[in-house]
Amino acid sequence: MQAIPIFLILSLLLSSSYAAVQDFCVGDLSGPDTPSGYTCKKKVTVSDFVYSGLGAAGNTSNIIKAAVTPAFADQFPGVNGLDISLARLDLAPSGVVPLHTHPGGSEVLIVAQGTICAGFISSANAVYFKNLNKGDIMVFPKGLLHFQINSGGSPALAFVSFSSSRPGLQITDFALFANDLPTEIINKVTFLDVAQIKKLKGVLGGTG
Amino acid sequence: MQAIPIFLILSLLLSSSYAAVQDFCVGDLSGPDTPSGYTCKKKVTVSDFVYSGLGAAGNTSNIIKAAVTPAFADQFPGVNGLDISLARLDLAPSGVVPLHTHPGGSEVLIVAQGTICAGFISSANAVYFKNLNKGDIMVFPKGLLHFQINSGGSPALAFVSFSSSRPGLQITDFALFANDLPTEIINKVTFLDVAQIKKLKGVLGGTG
Amino acid sequence: MQAIPIFLILSLLLSSSYAAVQDFCVGDLSGPDTPSGYTCKKKVTVSDFVYSGLGAAGNTSNIIKAAVTPAFADQFPGVNGLDISLARLDLAPSGVVPLHTHPGGSEVLIVAQGTICAGFISSANAVYFKNLNKGDIMVFPKGLLHFQINSGGSPALAFVSFSSSRPGLQITDFALFANDLPTEIINKVTFLDVAQIKKLKGVLGGTG
Amino acid sequence: MQAIPIFLILSLLLSSSYAAVQDFCVGDLSGPDTPSGYTCKKKVTVSDFVYSGLGAAGNTSNIIKAAVTPAFADQFPGVNGLDISLARLDLAPSGVVPLHTHPGGSEVLIVAQGTICAGFISSANAVYFKNLNKGDIMVFPKGLLHFQINSGGSPALAFVSFSSSRPGLQITDFALFANDLPTEIINKVTFLDVAQIKKLKGVLGGTG
Amino acid sequence: MQAIPIFLILSLLLSSSYAAVQDFCVGDLSGPDTPSGYTCKKKVTVSDFVYSGLGAAGNTSNIIKAAVTPAFADQFPGVNGLDISLARLDLAPSGVVPLHTHPGGSEVLIVAQGTICAGFISSANAVYFKNLNKGDIMVFPKGLLHFQINSGGSPALAFVSFSSSRPGLQITDFALFANDLPTEIINKVTFLDVAQIKKLKGVLGGTG
Amino acid sequence: MQAIPIFLILSLLLSSSYAAVQDFCVGDLSGPDTPSGYTCKKKVTVSDFVYSGLGAAGNTSNIIKAAVTPAFADQFPGVNGLDISLARLDLAPSGVVPLHTHPGGSEVLIVAQGTICAGFISSANAVYFKNLNKGDIMVFPKGLLHFQINSGGSPALAFVSFSSSRPGLQITDFALFANDLPTEIINKVTFLDVAQIKKLKGVLGGTG
Repeated sequence: MQAIPIFLILSLLLSSSYAAVQDFCVGDLSGPDTPSGYTCKKKVTVSDFVYSGLGAAGNTSNIIKAAVTPAFADQFPGVNGLDISLARLDLAPSGVVPLHTHPGGSEVLIVAQGTICAGFISSANAVYFKNLNKGDIMVFPKGLLHFQINSGGSPALAFVSFSSSRPGLQITDFALFANDLPTEIINKVTFLDVAQIKKLKGVLGGTG
Repeated sequence: MQAIPIFLILSLLLSSSYAAVQDFCVGDLSGPDTPSGYTCKKKVTVSDFVYSGLGAAGNTSNIIKAAVTPAFADQFPGVNGLDISLARLDLAPSGVVPLHTHPGGSEVLIVAQGTICAGFISSANAVYFKNLNKGDIMVFPKGLLHFQINSGGSPALAFVSFSSSRPGLQITDFALFANDLPTEIINKVTFLDVAQIKKLKGVLGGTG
Repeated sequence: MQAIPIFLILSLLLSSSYAAVQDFCVGDLSGPDTPSGYTCKKKVTVSDFVYSGLGAAGNTSNIIKAAVTPAFADQFPGVNGLDISLARLDLAPSGVVPLHTHPGGSEVLIVAQGTICAGFISSANAVYFKNLNKGDIMVFPKGLLHFQINSGGSPALAFVSFSSSRPGLQITDFALFANDLPTEIINKVTFLDVAQIKKLKGVLGGTG
Repeated sequence: MQAIPIFLILSLLLSSSYAAVQDFCVGDLSGPDTPSGYTCKKKVTVSDFVYSGLGAAGNTSNIIKAAVTPAFADQFPGVNGLDISLARLDLAPSGVVPLHTHPGGSEVLIVAQGTICAGFISSANAVYFKNLNKGDIMVFPKGLLHFQINSGGSPALAFVSFSSSRPGLQITDFALFANDLPTEIINKVTFLDVAQIKKLKGVLGGTG
Repeated sequence: MQAIPIFLILSLLLSSSYAAVQDFCVGDLSGPDTPSGYTCKKKVTVSDFVYSGLGAAGNTSNIIKAAVTPAFADQFPGVNGLDISLARLDLAPSGVVPLHTHPGGSEVLIVAQGTICAGFISSANAVYFKNLNKGDIMVFPKGLLHFQINSGGSPALAFVSFSSSRPGLQITDFALFANDLPTEIINKVTFLDVAQIKKLKGVLGGTG
Repeated sequence: MQAIPIFLILSLLLSSSYAAVQDFCVGDLSGPDTPSGYTCKKKVTVSDFVYSGLGAAGNTSNIIKAAVTPAFADQFPGVNGLDISLARLDLAPSGVVPLHTHPGGSEVLIVAQGTICAGFISSANAVYFKNLNKGDIMVFPKGLLHFQINSGGSPALAFVSFSSSRPGLQITDFALFANDLPTEIINKVTFLDVAQIKKLKGVLGGTG
């Protein structure tokens, strides 16, 4: 095998110009958004594929004693269009990630530290929950209500991955009580007492 | 053009045997289920593609004064694998379809009779609701919390279609209060008062 | 549970900025189009998710005595990217929606008024048709030829939903006779007599 | 690097048993069919991935002087579930593949021999057709009506590939005239004269 | 609101029987496999959604000083059909996960402990690699060659998630040298010297 | 049937303006790129759907005696968004398409001339290869390593189709030796001897 001619293989092998390929589409967050994700950044470096935002614990000095730190396409544009993303969950002792859904994807959680009671509820109203220890994983199928509670005495840490680069996060309480959805409507569609609704609206900043 | 030889085109044109095609896959509900839907019924007739179950009003003589009648793949196997299905909504005066999601698909509602106040809440906790009159349509994007309320003085009727043959239906109140999810957990993940939880568990048949 | 600190949960819970979510992508019809749909409108209100264009009957004062009124992404940008859309079908007595396909999706029809003879033909050339009464639904699998005929003595009304926000509509007669496709080619690819072709081109406005 | 220990990498690297992978799913044509394709054959050899059925010309001694030889999942189970398939087109001089659609996929045609006039019609009734010479390729977008005519004086050969392992093939004339669809219905949904319909039913073997 | 009648809502609201829903499809590994995944287990408990196999370190006492422990659908049937899965990576000091691809999905890696030099190569032959510290994440787009090397002095641990429940794992060296692919063919398709090929076949257990 | 009124059917039938349809999305290569493909060209002609670039043999006067001529979306924008594309393979006697993958799609090859030894390797490291003669076809499932060798004494020609409009092409040797991936890393992740690596880097133009 002689060296010099082979040196030309790259251009020879590919008869047509082949400059454009689409192995990935790092999101250009300033560009237009589409149903399949953001338009693609033109020049990328390795930094576009690496994200350090999950390295530090979220601030759990709040009432729920918990923090969710997402690495979705909006924080980590390298996953744009790739149907995958991550998030970090920090739960101080007795911390809780309240009842929520991800409208756009399924989730798998892995416990990195501590003990977490996690569960979901199916469309048939069946309840599936269990205490998870370090190294345990649990799957939460797409769109179903689920929750995580620190069920140990020490801080807990988990990483969650999603089958979408923008899975969304809809926390039921915030959807109901942290906006201006009228109390009368909430009462009708949830059967909750008006006093309970007003109490939670007060707590979560809602009006109406 | 001579008649007799053309009579043979059908077999001649297709050199290989071509018996099997897959334009559709009417679900065999007795067979195994798969992530893409039920296995396919072998012999089909026009009856497999027609369903009359939405022709009669659902029974709204209940507390919510509402009834949902689905024509999903489990009721109407003709839509199996086709990413589409329907349901009928009957709402007596002041009837309500409580807050719910469809984990598997988006929904479009069309008002056939009466007036309906319909709304949904986004992941960003923004509320979108409006009174819909006869002929109005509204879209509820995939997986988001939404509701329908008869806002007129007469019975209302709507038809809803979904982007899935099995969209699922998760009614928040039933997910919380119609099973054995422990009161303590509900309290932690929803901030609802224990008395409120117990009251609704009583009403909806839940235990724990 | 104390009120004030919880008021801050929303921002605390989500450690990273979380402004952008993609629950939906209301189409910006003036922007570029993509294989997955239009780019997304930046600011939306409830009006983007509601459409009233199906409320009025289409004009059936034409030879086919029928009208199709679509609510696809191009008329109703709220469904852009959501794999769902609707249309309204008005059929005066003896009205007909001629033989057609939707290249992009499956269809389910529900009869809201009157009686409709609807049918489709499979790739195996099997014919499936039936008289549908008020409340009956029928599915037309993706891409197959189908038709609807008012088979009762009174006006008929139906709503059709699709598994695509832009299912397309290709009416066989218009594809053949309402453009400049040369008569000679039509003759060769359909076996229709030249006189028949010229007659229909005359009727439907075709040339060539 | 020492030889013996590395010999064990294969089993050591993968801590869990890893026997089952799903790189492919060669169709078991005798098993159940599903919306995503046939169930998978358990043991496969290289023969499952190779097919010789396109090597011989189809028989064009028929009125249309053409033959289509498919290598879809039903003939070539190796493509089951892989969203790809092929077919061979033989067109004797003046041979024609009549107007047709593939309900399940897009098509690309490459001319291997001869000259072919190929065309398609869009949903907007725009006509796109052109004479293709050896080596030319043409794309026919999913579900649209298209045709191929040998426009040269010698036999033509083309290979067509599809974006589905079971794209289907609906030839408009066969859908209308090669079954028992009543003449009256055909007349209503196509505007064709009854005499024309009866003539083609006679030719193509239809009844009714 | 009176208690007793509401107790009946669940059955009343849903006019039709609604027993079957498909929120998930836990894989029945003994049943047939399909292009969309395994058929669904009929009865499930919370144990089907939890997996503890990633809790223990894989055995890195091998030449590459590394272990990959998968939780794909074949080990963790709860993710069947959900387009998501996980794996655990243990890398002793100087441990290496050799060059490989996942034919079926994209990957995101998070470093739980230690320092890992990870990289991938694009179709345009551009190289993207970086040292990742604890908490850093990196995405490896679908199907591209990539690798991980423990670049610190202590054991490293990472968790990787995939956008498929069965992403596959093709290690280039094993694909070439751990089977009976003839040396002559390997030489032709890789340009590697015969001596090099024979050496690695010896090490990895290949023949031919 | 009267002629004049029917002439108006087109506009009457479709009550709403219906100008925009999306049967296809010819790529505007100068516009933004998205995860689903390029944005759509606004005006198209039949030339956008035809490509002649595969008509001429690629230049095989190179060391591998082979040429790959792609008709992907970047060369043939008519396939943009349609999940299909083609390429032409020219192999002079003893020509070789080196070991490679297509990260984005499955491939089917048809031999148009000559004899080709083609093969692929599965995730389970099983090898599937065979001599293919004129007219034989072979499928290479998505993302798996495969190769083609002219195994006859005369030039060979093949056409390959893909299940993606941009399948990508990653030639293992170029990924390793035609860039600046450090020799030390290559050595670690492939077990190849440093001398072998340096030799191939020299041949293929790599540095580092």
